Amino acid sequence: MKYSSLATPSILVDVDRVELNCERMLSRARSLGVRLRPHMKTHKCIEIGRLQVGAESGPITVSTLAEARHFANHGFSDIVLAVPIAPCRVAEALDLGVALLVDSPEAVAAVESEVGAGGVDVWLKVDCGYGRAGVVPGTPGAVSMARQLHDSARLRFRGVLTHGGHSYDCVGVEQIRAVAAQERDVVVGFAEALRGLGMAVDEVSVGSTPTMMHVDHLEGVTEIRPGNYALFDGFQAAIGSCHRDDVAVSVLTSVIGAYADRLILDVGALALSKDPGPTHVDPDCGFGRLLDDSGEAISDLRLTGLSQEHGKAYGTGASRFRVGDKLRVEPNHSCLTMACFSDVHAIRGDDVVGVFEPVRGWAGG
Amino acid sequence: MKYSSLATPSILVDVDRVELNCERMLSRARSLGVRLRPHMKTHKCIEIGRLQVGAESGPITVSTLAEARHFANHGFSDIVLAVPIAPCRVAEALDLGVALLVDSPEAVAAVESEVGAGGVDVWLKVDCGYGRAGVVPGTPGAVSMARQLHDSARLRFRGVLTHGGHSYDCVGVEQIRAVAAQERDVVVGFAEALRGLGMAVDEVSVGSTPTMMHVDHLEGVTEIRPGNYALFDGFQAAIGSCHRDDVAVSVLTSVIGAYADRLILDVGALALSKDPGPTHVDPDCGFGRLLDDSGEAISDLRLTGLSQEHGKAYGTGASRFRVGDKLRVEPNHSCLTMACFSDVHAIRGDDVVGVFEPVRGWAGG
Repeated sequence: MKYSSLATPSILVDVDRVELNCERMLSRARSLGVRLRPHMKTHKCIEIGRLQVGAESGPITVSTLAEARHFANHGFSDIVLAVPIAPCRVAEALDLGVALLVDSPEAVAAVESEVGAGGVDVWLKVDCGYGRAGVVPGTPGAVSMARQLHDSARLRFRGVLTHGGHSYDCVGVEQIRAVAAQERDVVVGFAEALRGLGMAVDEVSVGSTPTMMHVDHLEGVTEIRPGNYALFDGFQAAIGSCHRDDVAVSVLTSVIGAYADRLILDVGALALSKDPGPTHVDPDCGFGRLLDDSGEAISDLRLTGLSQEHGKAYGTGASRFRVGDKLRVEPNHSCLTMACFSDVHAIRGDDVVGVFEPVRGWAGG
Repeated sequence: MKYSSLATPSILVDVDRVELNCERMLSRARSLGVRLRPHMKTHKCIEIGRLQVGAESGPITVSTLAEARHFANHGFSDIVLAVPIAPCRVAEALDLGVALLVDSPEAVAAVESEVGAGGVDVWLKVDCGYGRAGVVPGTPGAVSMARQLHDSARLRFRGVLTHGGHSYDCVGVEQIRAVAAQERDVVVGFAEALRGLGMAVDEVSVGSTPTMMHVDHLEGVTEIRPGNYALFDGFQAAIGSCHRDDVAVSVLTSVIGAYADRLILDVGALALSKDPGPTHVDPDCGFGRLLDDSGEAISDLRLTGLSQEHGKAYGTGASRFRVGDKLRVEPNHSCLTMACFSDVHAIRGDDVVGVFEPVRGWAGG
């Protein structure tokens, strides 16, 4: 079946591109001398996770317990939940045997009170400058949290972990490389400082897709956790994390209205997400880049309006299209757009070669 | 079970409030002398749809064929798909027996070529000033489209239908009422003009939640199609469509990080959507209003950052909370937030009284 025959809206993943993206990151990890523990949150599909680890299973990162359970059910056993654990979900997480992130005394207390004799792997979440979660190296609280994990009888302190999410604010490779150096240097330095205080810190984990695509070296780091690179998206291409031709995901849409100044498409906020995209690079980027049948960008139409089930694309190009024509949208943010769909169509060239089923939500098991 | 014991993130629907909201709109429709054909797209739940029609089934509006199929499977038979039909989905729509919206010769041709001897109900989509889909009254194209539908041997022309979606740009009841008058007058006037040209126009359908909450009269209109009012949300409250106490939906969240300047919550873009909210009323509204245990607004924290699974709430209030505390978020846009969850927890007061399962996606059947 040709993907152009699919009902709209449908999401398409170009498997040839995914394979290239995954091979490139595996190769980068090898040459940088680190373990690759790829993140599954972008796609939540077993098939793509296997391409990322280059095997039937391997070390992975997840963002929800639903992902952890899904991958565990398919043979993955070395799983890090890379969001600080909510105390109300500790018991479930322990049942699943995933490694946990903590950075607060309350979370430590919750884990210690529920963990059995088998113990649990824990990582200390470190803020390398992103300003989301994590202890800040150099502060007394950071050292005391590390000490608490290190000295705990029931927790196995694996090491320190950070995420240079501020790489998404960059424009161009040079800026990304500077954030990558900061991400690495802050957490490697912190690990060294803890070792200087007598603590064993076996592991140092870093990673975002932009920083791992461009970092120059990873001395002192033991593993990396990028995820988005399997698919990439318009945002990554705009900031210089990848080339346009690396983007492996798009949404097939029908023109359902053709007017003098605009097209109406059958993709709205529920099919694309309302991610505003790389507005710091292009304030007029709209809600995704329009591509024609052959994958060429349509430069004279901008998808600047989204309601629940309608997309509005304005521009002089509107006159070239008719109701019923099919276009594709390269999403701003593949992680949010993939989560809109229950069935993901795997394509090679023009052909549909399979259907992937992502896990979704946060439900307990 | 108390809702405060639920795992986070979970979505909560206050059924007492939904009942009041639904009764009020049923009562408004009666006093305005029109049929209520409520929209299901906000919640996509059978249980809430039944409260909206005030019976086991009744006339409804849907935004996808998946919704149409779900409600048809639960006894609803009078269904209008209120998005212009994509030609590639005409056969499915005809199988389901839903009434269709058209406003282009291409869509008419697709329907005429596939419809059987039983025919199909069609509505002409009219643009009353919103500028999304629909023919523009007063233009030659509008009359010729109506004529094409009216004269078709296989299509049953039901009437004209519009949606005053620009009511969402309003601030306050007076502005909403002006859009409501425009929504009504444009389409009633167009129906009259078509009748003057010898066409039978039995039905005139209008509606958005803001306009139907505040319109002063509906002379010439036969049915209304609001939907969001069953739940409302932060946006509707901000523009004056409802009171804060009418909002029936919230997302339960845990504090997973507590820092000097901010809280990190376990609700990100996948649990709330990235809807920017009523920025024209409050540019700093953030991604949802934070509520405490008792439903009171937390005025000294703003949820201004969202990544995939993290929410960042900044403000002086951060110091009052600890990791593990549970809060609620009143979403900006209930339609998009409901679509993030597979299970919806129905609550009355503090108690969970049931679980609703919304349909999702666009899959064929």
